[in-house]
Amino acid sequence: MTMVCLKDFEEYARQHLSKATWDYYAAGADECCTRDDNLQAYKRIRLRPRILRDVSMSDTRTTVLGTEISFPVGIAPTAFHCLAWHEGELATARATESLNTCYITSTYSTCSVEEICAAAPNGFRWFQLYVYRDRNLSEQLVRRVEVLGYKALVLTVDVPYTGKRRDDIRNRFKLPPHLKVKNFEGVFEETTGLDEYGVPANTLDPSISWKDVHWLQSVTRLPIIIKGILTKEDAELAVEHGVQGIIVSNHGGRQLDGGPATIDCLSEIVDAVQGRVEVYLDGGVRTGGDVLKALALGAKCVFIGRPAVWGLAYKGEQGLREVLQILKDEFCLSMALSGCRNVAEINRNLIHFSKL
Amino acid sequence: MTMVCLKDFEEYARQHLSKATWDYYAAGADECCTRDDNLQAYKRIRLRPRILRDVSMSDTRTTVLGTEISFPVGIAPTAFHCLAWHEGELATARATESLNTCYITSTYSTCSVEEICAAAPNGFRWFQLYVYRDRNLSEQLVRRVEVLGYKALVLTVDVPYTGKRRDDIRNRFKLPPHLKVKNFEGVFEETTGLDEYGVPANTLDPSISWKDVHWLQSVTRLPIIIKGILTKEDAELAVEHGVQGIIVSNHGGRQLDGGPATIDCLSEIVDAVQGRVEVYLDGGVRTGGDVLKALALGAKCVFIGRPAVWGLAYKGEQGLREVLQILKDEFCLSMALSGCRNVAEINRNLIHFSKL
Amino acid sequence: MTMVCLKDFEEYARQHLSKATWDYYAAGADECCTRDDNLQAYKRIRLRPRILRDVSMSDTRTTVLGTEISFPVGIAPTAFHCLAWHEGELATARATESLNTCYITSTYSTCSVEEICAAAPNGFRWFQLYVYRDRNLSEQLVRRVEVLGYKALVLTVDVPYTGKRRDDIRNRFKLPPHLKVKNFEGVFEETTGLDEYGVPANTLDPSISWKDVHWLQSVTRLPIIIKGILTKEDAELAVEHGVQGIIVSNHGGRQLDGGPATIDCLSEIVDAVQGRVEVYLDGGVRTGGDVLKALALGAKCVFIGRPAVWGLAYKGEQGLREVLQILKDEFCLSMALSGCRNVAEINRNLIHFSKL
Amino acid sequence: MTMVCLKDFEEYARQHLSKATWDYYAAGADECCTRDDNLQAYKRIRLRPRILRDVSMSDTRTTVLGTEISFPVGIAPTAFHCLAWHEGELATARATESLNTCYITSTYSTCSVEEICAAAPNGFRWFQLYVYRDRNLSEQLVRRVEVLGYKALVLTVDVPYTGKRRDDIRNRFKLPPHLKVKNFEGVFEETTGLDEYGVPANTLDPSISWKDVHWLQSVTRLPIIIKGILTKEDAELAVEHGVQGIIVSNHGGRQLDGGPATIDCLSEIVDAVQGRVEVYLDGGVRTGGDVLKALALGAKCVFIGRPAVWGLAYKGEQGLREVLQILKDEFCLSMALSGCRNVAEINRNLIHFSKL
Repeated sequence: MTMVCLKDFEEYARQHLSKATWDYYAAGADECCTRDDNLQAYKRIRLRPRILRDVSMSDTRTTVLGTEISFPVGIAPTAFHCLAWHEGELATARATESLNTCYITSTYSTCSVEEICAAAPNGFRWFQLYVYRDRNLSEQLVRRVEVLGYKALVLTVDVPYTGKRRDDIRNRFKLPPHLKVKNFEGVFEETTGLDEYGVPANTLDPSISWKDVHWLQSVTRLPIIIKGILTKEDAELAVEHGVQGIIVSNHGGRQLDGGPATIDCLSEIVDAVQGRVEVYLDGGVRTGGDVLKALALGAKCVFIGRPAVWGLAYKGEQGLREVLQILKDEFCLSMALSGCRNVAEINRNLIHFSKL
Repeated sequence: MTMVCLKDFEEYARQHLSKATWDYYAAGADECCTRDDNLQAYKRIRLRPRILRDVSMSDTRTTVLGTEISFPVGIAPTAFHCLAWHEGELATARATESLNTCYITSTYSTCSVEEICAAAPNGFRWFQLYVYRDRNLSEQLVRRVEVLGYKALVLTVDVPYTGKRRDDIRNRFKLPPHLKVKNFEGVFEETTGLDEYGVPANTLDPSISWKDVHWLQSVTRLPIIIKGILTKEDAELAVEHGVQGIIVSNHGGRQLDGGPATIDCLSEIVDAVQGRVEVYLDGGVRTGGDVLKALALGAKCVFIGRPAVWGLAYKGEQGLREVLQILKDEFCLSMALSGCRNVAEINRNLIHFSKL
Repeated sequence: MTMVCLKDFEEYARQHLSKATWDYYAAGADECCTRDDNLQAYKRIRLRPRILRDVSMSDTRTTVLGTEISFPVGIAPTAFHCLAWHEGELATARATESLNTCYITSTYSTCSVEEICAAAPNGFRWFQLYVYRDRNLSEQLVRRVEVLGYKALVLTVDVPYTGKRRDDIRNRFKLPPHLKVKNFEGVFEETTGLDEYGVPANTLDPSISWKDVHWLQSVTRLPIIIKGILTKEDAELAVEHGVQGIIVSNHGGRQLDGGPATIDCLSEIVDAVQGRVEVYLDGGVRTGGDVLKALALGAKCVFIGRPAVWGLAYKGEQGLREVLQILKDEFCLSMALSGCRNVAEINRNLIHFSKL
Repeated sequence: MTMVCLKDFEEYARQHLSKATWDYYAAGADECCTRDDNLQAYKRIRLRPRILRDVSMSDTRTTVLGTEISFPVGIAPTAFHCLAWHEGELATARATESLNTCYITSTYSTCSVEEICAAAPNGFRWFQLYVYRDRNLSEQLVRRVEVLGYKALVLTVDVPYTGKRRDDIRNRFKLPPHLKVKNFEGVFEETTGLDEYGVPANTLDPSISWKDVHWLQSVTRLPIIIKGILTKEDAELAVEHGVQGIIVSNHGGRQLDGGPATIDCLSEIVDAVQGRVEVYLDGGVRTGGDVLKALALGAKCVFIGRPAVWGLAYKGEQGLREVLQILKDEFCLSMALSGCRNVAEINRNLIHFSKL
């Protein structure tokens, strides 16, 4: 089988992962309206390509928080990579290092951050963080990733409670006993109250508020990026609270069903922020053309979640490299076919607004 | 089978009820456009969730006409619960009492109001009423439910004639001989002119008008709620005629086909009423997210019809309790994921109006 | 089989007519976009029903050009009723007489106008007319129908050439040898140049223009109704040329594919005409609710084409009576459920314009 | 099988061409959104037909750059006609000559321009040109087609790189060894570095810019038409650079996926150009009604790509003649049914703009 586009990897993963694992990654909340709209929304957007602009030199590089990456697609945090491929996050770390892009390591990794960094010592990484009821637990993670050279903290704010994913409930999804959330190894005493993710239940704190952003700022000097903003009001608050970036995200449609597609609320947020912080996006990116649309609407970079897992499921590091390379090639081609030589030339004039 | 969402109960009912009974409950008028649009309309509405608002304490309670209920979902009046479950409305009464919400008892119950109240003496109930050609018949029902402690009368106004439900005609749907509209037992003399619902034909009065609202007010001190309003003009008239509440309803799409989805005309009515009376809604509510959307657009409470019947068909009282508990849990989760701690915080800012 | 709605008759006809005959009646031009949109357009229109308006007395009667009919649905001209039922137009004449509505007899009838009038001497009829290259031919038809008591001429203006109906070409559709366009019997000499309709080819005159309306006015005192207008500009011209009525029609989608659904351009025409002449409509009417929508948007009466043929195919006169009775009952019920006691109360307030 | 409409030819070609060949012609870029929207967009446009305008004389003739053609449909450049029919472009040349319309010969023909002209010495032809890295190669082609009497150069500007057509990659599409891009025969020395099209890889120059338009003007006196413009900005630039025509084209959806349907951006370009140059269109034309819509929106002529290939696949010259004749007949009929006697009478009043 020739792997030509991301759908090929999706199909491979659907056929090779166990049903429970496939369902876990594929899951959306409730009726999956938001999950599906994340993709459909891109189809409603029409580009306005320009011609005869000498696109012989294409440069897909950009920077995120000042660090250069080879193209504006990073890896969104997703849990349990060992479910998809036996080497898990080590493969992810190596693939992203080799493509020179940003890997947002999930707290819920099945390899520890130390192992991840050892596997790809020169990789560029951010760390995804939750605020736990026991703030100390969050703080310990921050200390560890600071030492390891993580460049930013991505604070996920859209999980005061876990969304209702019907298939996971039907499947009674649980992390298999041979896998562990390695970042917590030795942190919790052995207990019978483990939740489906292999960590003690009710560790996430639903009381988190903007105060906790201040708390986090008080315990770290790493830049903080808020992941999970979907309105201009919260974007404004994020800027006012001194964060360094925003990821427009609906958690892949896994949390609130009925919320907007991320690409549909990107403009509102970019307009509110007015360049004061960088705005990123995840959700629904499946082609290089999708990346181009997101950048044209103001995203500095996008992140892929499920497609990265599909790449791992296909061939580990090699599979993820293929996924990233395909997106990079497609993005580069879409840029050229739209008349853009580099990411700085991508702007709103590329979008057919009257058709939105 | 794990019952995870309301669709699971629908599927169970479809498989376990007789075809004629399933068809009766599922029926919409004519081409079922309005019935189907009641559900589709929710999918077109996009929420604007807010984050970092400390949703550790979630309070789903609200009040309807001053009475507290545990969450803003009650039971809409539907006929013949014994068709779905042998205990019929007794099960409904017990389930709603146990969940502490409002049960609008249908006149066309297959248990009498006295039996219903005996089964759940502390339940909170309203009584659904038609105006009969023989006003005395309506008045007797009012007297009985006043005595029994019903808290309000829900006057159904959208059935001057019964809607054309094709499958019922094809099936020659009739209440089976072992079931009776118990509230009428002994009221009519034995007659051969029974209609398909087991009551004498042509008892409903198509001449009802606002005068009859005055007449009803003259014979009772119970609050009156008009069920079946779909326009601002009629909402205004309802307020002017001194009723206490409005249920925006198209009778589950069973009366006029081609009318609007209830959620689509809610705003118009809420705007017209301007808080002078409470506005409720029924039709198409299938998830907690739907409840959240209805409240965000101004409904004080919503009512479910068919899903309650599916719960009964599954396991009687227990089945309906599960249906209600699922909706309550989903609503609570949707609230939290939208940044709302209680129903007072739910408002129009939650709705993406430009996408409507 | 219980015949509950017009779709039941359609299904019966599909199963019982020969493929070529079914295809002939079902045909639309080219890709059938306009044919299909005629029906879909009704589904996009939402009614605004009013309640509590004393609808105990329902009166569906209306007048067309001053003549009372029992409800605002007549029979649009369609060709070759003998293809659907052996008695052909005689059955149509009897059914419409018995329901007391208007039957627009097609020139291309398989019974002669004399036979039709003899079959239903008290029927109310208009005559559909084409302008032929040989004006004498048209004039002779006018003379005959004047004598027979036809009350108006319906001049079809959207067939300068026959639309391209793919299935008819594939089927090489031809009127079977045992059937004749009886109105032409003896008019043409025996010739080998008969077209697929059994009449000499190229008899229709593609040069017809507004001058021919004047010519027609000069040879008859019957009122003239123009059938086939879809724009306000032509509606204005029709009024200026002194016609008595307009039928908004796209010939059932059989002529120009890509034109509008008739219900979608009705308002434009009603607004242009401002009551100076009566405006009717055909195309896509399948339920009483459709009739209500057309009247709410300004049609004085609607006409059905294919459904009449389906009724004939089912049971001749009796079948068409059932079709008409169903539409009448559905229309009556829709009126009542919308709060209208008679056709005079049907107006634009019934339509949810912001949803169009 | 009766060939009634272009879909019949498509179906024939699908069944008779090899999978790789069919896929090659059918291919769109990436997810084929733009390819498919090219067709769908026509379905969203509604015509406003006028009646009673004496359409007895229909004249479909028009001119392109001053040359008369029998109707406003020409042949867009597509590669490798020998893949579809053994005589290849010779058949195309003869068919277009016989119908008297414009044939834009592709550089990537499997017959040489000399052979093409010899096959149909009186044909009216334009030549499609790419700018090669080796400008000399382009210039030589220009010299040859000037000598042969080609009337214009169609400079394709939307292929700085080839679009990503998934099926071609999967099929490893290659021109079979027995076929050659004949226009290059003897031009390149035998080399192993042939690309999938049988010519040396990387010959197209992605650096082309408006400067190259000036260069081309400097080496030829033939009129230059830019093919591949989709925005008003580029249309304005084209006019400013002194070209004679614009073909609104997205290369049949084979280059940038996510761009607009050509019919959807035609108006924008026509408005920008204001008659200073002629505007043509290709993409998605499948019926005479589509041609009418394109002309009503301002196109001077349209060009068909895939349908021409289907015609060849069916029966070579004869098949393409049938395709063209069908489009001509359908266009002529659509004109008449819309009340237009000639192409000069086709204008924007024919379009229902409020429905767009």
